[in-house]
Amino acid sequence: MLKGTIETTDDFRKYGKEMIDMIADYHDNIANLPVVPDVKPGYIRDLLPSKPPQTPQNYEKIINTFNEAVVPGLTQWHSPRFHAYYPIGNSYPSLLGGILGDAIGCAGFSWKSNPAYTELEVVTMDWFAEMLDLPKVFMHSSEGNGGAIIQTSASESALVSLLAAKSRILTTKDSDSTKLVAYCSEQAHSSIERAEMLAHVPIKKIKTDHKYSMKGDTLEKQIAIDIEAGLTPFFVVATLGTTSLCSFDKVDEIGEVCQKYPNLWLHVDAAYAGSAFICPEYRYLSKGLDNVDSFVVNFNKWMMVNLECSALYLRNSRDFTDSYNVDPLYLKHEHQETAPDFRHWQIPLSRSFRSLKLWMVLMSYGVKGLQQHIRYQIKMAKYFETLLVQDTRFEIFHDVTMGLVCFRLKGANDLNEKLNRRINNSANIHMTPSFVEENFVLRFVIGSRLTDIDDIDFALNKIKSHADELGKDEK
Amino acid sequence: MLKGTIETTDDFRKYGKEMIDMIADYHDNIANLPVVPDVKPGYIRDLLPSKPPQTPQNYEKIINTFNEAVVPGLTQWHSPRFHAYYPIGNSYPSLLGGILGDAIGCAGFSWKSNPAYTELEVVTMDWFAEMLDLPKVFMHSSEGNGGAIIQTSASESALVSLLAAKSRILTTKDSDSTKLVAYCSEQAHSSIERAEMLAHVPIKKIKTDHKYSMKGDTLEKQIAIDIEAGLTPFFVVATLGTTSLCSFDKVDEIGEVCQKYPNLWLHVDAAYAGSAFICPEYRYLSKGLDNVDSFVVNFNKWMMVNLECSALYLRNSRDFTDSYNVDPLYLKHEHQETAPDFRHWQIPLSRSFRSLKLWMVLMSYGVKGLQQHIRYQIKMAKYFETLLVQDTRFEIFHDVTMGLVCFRLKGANDLNEKLNRRINNSANIHMTPSFVEENFVLRFVIGSRLTDIDDIDFALNKIKSHADELGKDEK
Repeated sequence: MLKGTIETTDDFRKYGKEMIDMIADYHDNIANLPVVPDVKPGYIRDLLPSKPPQTPQNYEKIINTFNEAVVPGLTQWHSPRFHAYYPIGNSYPSLLGGILGDAIGCAGFSWKSNPAYTELEVVTMDWFAEMLDLPKVFMHSSEGNGGAIIQTSASESALVSLLAAKSRILTTKDSDSTKLVAYCSEQAHSSIERAEMLAHVPIKKIKTDHKYSMKGDTLEKQIAIDIEAGLTPFFVVATLGTTSLCSFDKVDEIGEVCQKYPNLWLHVDAAYAGSAFICPEYRYLSKGLDNVDSFVVNFNKWMMVNLECSALYLRNSRDFTDSYNVDPLYLKHEHQETAPDFRHWQIPLSRSFRSLKLWMVLMSYGVKGLQQHIRYQIKMAKYFETLLVQDTRFEIFHDVTMGLVCFRLKGANDLNEKLNRRINNSANIHMTPSFVEENFVLRFVIGSRLTDIDDIDFALNKIKSHADELGKDEK
Repeated sequence: MLKGTIETTDDFRKYGKEMIDMIADYHDNIANLPVVPDVKPGYIRDLLPSKPPQTPQNYEKIINTFNEAVVPGLTQWHSPRFHAYYPIGNSYPSLLGGILGDAIGCAGFSWKSNPAYTELEVVTMDWFAEMLDLPKVFMHSSEGNGGAIIQTSASESALVSLLAAKSRILTTKDSDSTKLVAYCSEQAHSSIERAEMLAHVPIKKIKTDHKYSMKGDTLEKQIAIDIEAGLTPFFVVATLGTTSLCSFDKVDEIGEVCQKYPNLWLHVDAAYAGSAFICPEYRYLSKGLDNVDSFVVNFNKWMMVNLECSALYLRNSRDFTDSYNVDPLYLKHEHQETAPDFRHWQIPLSRSFRSLKLWMVLMSYGVKGLQQHIRYQIKMAKYFETLLVQDTRFEIFHDVTMGLVCFRLKGANDLNEKLNRRINNSANIHMTPSFVEENFVLRFVIGSRLTDIDDIDFALNKIKSHADELGKDEK
């Protein structure tokens, strides 16, 4: 019937295998590509025709166009020399799980719409809950209404948690929606500020201690002031592994404070660092999860799983299903009372089969392989730190606990900004900076699963030689 | 370093090609699989170990487990005999674009974080705007601030549009957030009601005419009543192709009404039917888009593109960027004034490289191939309708314009409920019903790109023979 160029299963067998080889070649060669591309806004528009193709283009033409137009504009997030932001997960089992999930290609908005979809997600989320040593209450198999689903992102997880908390307090108290107030640390991620804007509720930023941690007593003081002023505190975000510095809020203290107030929801954003809790030696950082209402960890950051895979664990899914439940006839089915319908737990109705890639990564590496990955990346960060401080021009800005090293040249911000610009202009390695309490800080992240000791040595040499040249210029 | 079982590029070459063959075999055989699985809630938990694997499992073991545990619980959305809900897109070029995008695996939250990501999305969205004959104002290349991005879903698109409209009215008027009111038709999708809950604003349902269309005058009367009562109308949702019946609101009339009120945002939900506007002969259904603020079409429904691919077109992206702009140092870059940063247009910060699969589908089919797909599916629906009405027991419930046929047995709802249950219990074909103005309605959708004339004949025979048996039982 259709006349596409990749239309029959034979076409797919042929071109699919060519695509596998192309991806394999790309990954084999990724270390040799510039980490940051040298293109200007509008570059693809200049390369492509102004009109879409009217007729089918053959595979060779499609791939040539991809190579000419797309490849030159890619930032190579999986280059072993990519040290910016936080990682995006990637691995071969994830790629295979992704294409298999797409081939099945079905929505799982209700249990009935695709039972295997809901079932595999339930089991995989429970397995990870156990691996992370989360309190039992967060598991689907627990006696209560706990459980988890895979959202697109920590941003979305924070927003839906905040909106559910808002619904909860507005239905259980005769409270005024204009008096609501929420809290996070001044180090919290920009997505929390975004959630504030989207939900139209004010979120107050709590001052952190000398380790950039939000503490229980500081939060409690602000809550007391706000209650005195007639406000209703309803939502607190604590972060485990902040984006700027990878600092950790005191969840145990904060949880005890939240327990004192009815319907004060505690959301924990462990987007990056949460994956490390699969290693017992890092669980000292996650103390106090017993008093938490929602906990998010982006497996698409540090568990070698592709976007989108943000696990949101809930103490009581009824807080969500009561807020978001819409039940038209075309979505009803006979098992609604015994199986979760994920559409009530999220913003989208339909989404792709995300648990499959996470499950394949877990099967292919096992718990031990995943632990090894986390430990190796932290070891690389420590190695970088150890060598860097041997150069007395540099100082470490914040404790290195995970795969992030925050440092700066001793001296003015201006100098550090120049160093950052030089490093990124060279396109040999890529880093993104941060700004903390008037300090311009350089961030060095172990971002790729391919990063090895040679890549750390390479980066160190580049950073030092840029600092050398900067020193000459300054004279 | 790592010891996963699909770890080296050689592993990937080997198992990736096996996976391609496995998917090809699966699609070759899909017509022979039961459309609806025969499993009970909890079935996967009973099949899998209670604990996650500690050590790496080999590829063969992973695939065997998949075949034993996942496959028996799949609803086959791409079976040619799947006629439920609305379609989820799928095609080989989409699968290849998906795995290639995952292999690149980078976030595109800012232009700088991956220029090719933003650039390809901008061009592809503009190409589709032209193909759909949207007003120029919705294009990135237009002089104003129009443009589009790919959201996860129509649900998310409606929510972010509603929240932006709420922000816009709250900043431009000295209006009271508790006085806001929004509108949609009583046939609007459940996601609109969901958006109402999430955004904590009331959405009033407007009565439709005898063709299940929301009309301008009916809306205007309600607006006048509400303004008289001191409320502030700020948001209207019009639907082109409703979920229950595929009815079409009168966007031209509604747009003229909205123009009379300052800051009354008109959002058009064309999730399913919007793709049909690439065929000129269906554009009579989309008259009046000149007065629209936001327009959403899920290419992951009818353009053979996998989830998630919901294109949201905006008249003025500043309505979004002003609402959602958060700009920490670690995300700043030097091209912020000349290139769009998609993070300001959406809820998530990071998302996968969605435009690549859409672009590959367009390249591989061309505009003409995509038109042919739409036309063929509508032709199949018409064919079903023509044959069905030759059996005088049945009546068509609503005009067939797209790939959906709504029908019922003449007589009581009870009879139609029984027929629906029989059809779905047989697992030969799958349909989902609807309930419209006290009528239980059967929906027959052309859902799979594989559905051909033989499959329609098969479905007709099954439906008729279930009706025969039902007739016998009733006697």
